[in-house]
Amino acid sequence: MLSKTKVKYIQSLGQKKFRQSEMLFIAEGIKIVEELISEIPDLIVEVFAIQEWVEPQKKINAKIPITEITQQELERISQLTTPNKVLAIIKMLPEVKLSSIKNKVVLALDGIQDPGNMGTIIRIADWFGIEQIVCSTDSADPYNPKVVQATMGSIARVKIIHTDLKKWLEDMSDTQIFAAVLGGKDVSSINKISEGVIIIGNESKGISPELLKLSNIKIAIPAKGKAESLNAAVATGIILSHLI
Amino acid sequence: MLSKTKVKYIQSLGQKKFRQSEMLFIAEGIKIVEELISEIPDLIVEVFAIQEWVEPQKKINAKIPITEITQQELERISQLTTPNKVLAIIKMLPEVKLSSIKNKVVLALDGIQDPGNMGTIIRIADWFGIEQIVCSTDSADPYNPKVVQATMGSIARVKIIHTDLKKWLEDMSDTQIFAAVLGGKDVSSINKISEGVIIIGNESKGISPELLKLSNIKIAIPAKGKAESLNAAVATGIILSHLI
Repeated sequence: MLSKTKVKYIQSLGQKKFRQSEMLFIAEGIKIVEELISEIPDLIVEVFAIQEWVEPQKKINAKIPITEITQQELERISQLTTPNKVLAIIKMLPEVKLSSIKNKVVLALDGIQDPGNMGTIIRIADWFGIEQIVCSTDSADPYNPKVVQATMGSIARVKIIHTDLKKWLEDMSDTQIFAAVLGGKDVSSINKISEGVIIIGNESKGISPELLKLSNIKIAIPAKGKAESLNAAVATGIILSHLI
Repeated sequence: MLSKTKVKYIQSLGQKKFRQSEMLFIAEGIKIVEELISEIPDLIVEVFAIQEWVEPQKKINAKIPITEITQQELERISQLTTPNKVLAIIKMLPEVKLSSIKNKVVLALDGIQDPGNMGTIIRIADWFGIEQIVCSTDSADPYNPKVVQATMGSIARVKIIHTDLKKWLEDMSDTQIFAAVLGGKDVSSINKISEGVIIIGNESKGISPELLKLSNIKIAIPAKGKAESLNAAVATGIILSHLI
């Protein structure tokens, strides 16, 4: 049985300021929680789950503190409209300094706002073997429950660094910096890369002019129909599938 | 001032059964509503908007019935957490019979469930000039407000047909039918196509085995990292960017 204080505490982790003061975040659902348990077991603080999930897990993961709760309790602590059996409280991965980008492709996110897009981009990066994402300070919080959900577990594998993007890109001027813009070079005509930075812009404003100036290769995904734009995460996936 | 009956009526269009009995749907937000007004003006039944949006529009679109409402009224009729100035009631596009797929690429959606994915896929199709999407009968309703939102207006240009996908694909056996599966041929190595069907599978179960059997070309997006899968809409975007 969960105490009222505990329920309130878990609910509070839905808010950024509490996540940051506690340095904790929550993940939900069988698939994501099991992936995080296997990837970052030492960062799992506590798992709350209904009986059905608890029984088999207790044997496999004897070290993970699991508390069995009722469906009603799960509904109270869950951030989802349809809670999915299990919720975990997890320590935030320490924000690392950006390691050298030598022989690496890095995504630079300029004000990605939508949590679903942010999470999907982290999942795409993981799919294409990108280990580091650099975000402007106004990008969505990667520990927002909706972001964590959309990463489908990839949050455990991709390092996310928040920084002054402009300053950071200025230091990168001797590497290839790609920016997707209308009228850029068809991305499918560009040779594969093993090193470089790819800037992804805000959902409605695109890449800010000051960052655009710092890019040295303008690329585009040619449109064949009448849609005005592509979703930011979809564009990221398409660009990476051609460049990597 | 909106009557209670009117408010209830508009709210009811958030539910599929009312949308279907009325043959109407709602669209919200400046960008989408303005795009729909310009694309399908004859299907716009009524527009509700706050003063700021109404003033300039009344001159441009004299024929569209616009009702000015307050922000509070907008909040009551809106399906969004952050209503964006305008909401329109629109007649559903008549569900057409599938025209010949001669010289056309058609998407076949096998049980896409998430409204955001469905809407994003419609937007991607529009971007790549795909005019028709065939959906299994258990796919998300394209007139769900979240789908309409995610299409960013492309719902007005892409024809969506619901049908028994298995029967339909059986009739298509003399065309190329692509299916993305693990271990398929790298999509970037396949020649561009001007005709064919591309099957996109359900978010968690993938393409159902009975449909998979009907496909004659298995393709894949090679993974370089450790993520287990890609989001269905992102995969659609990547596949189309290589095949079209």
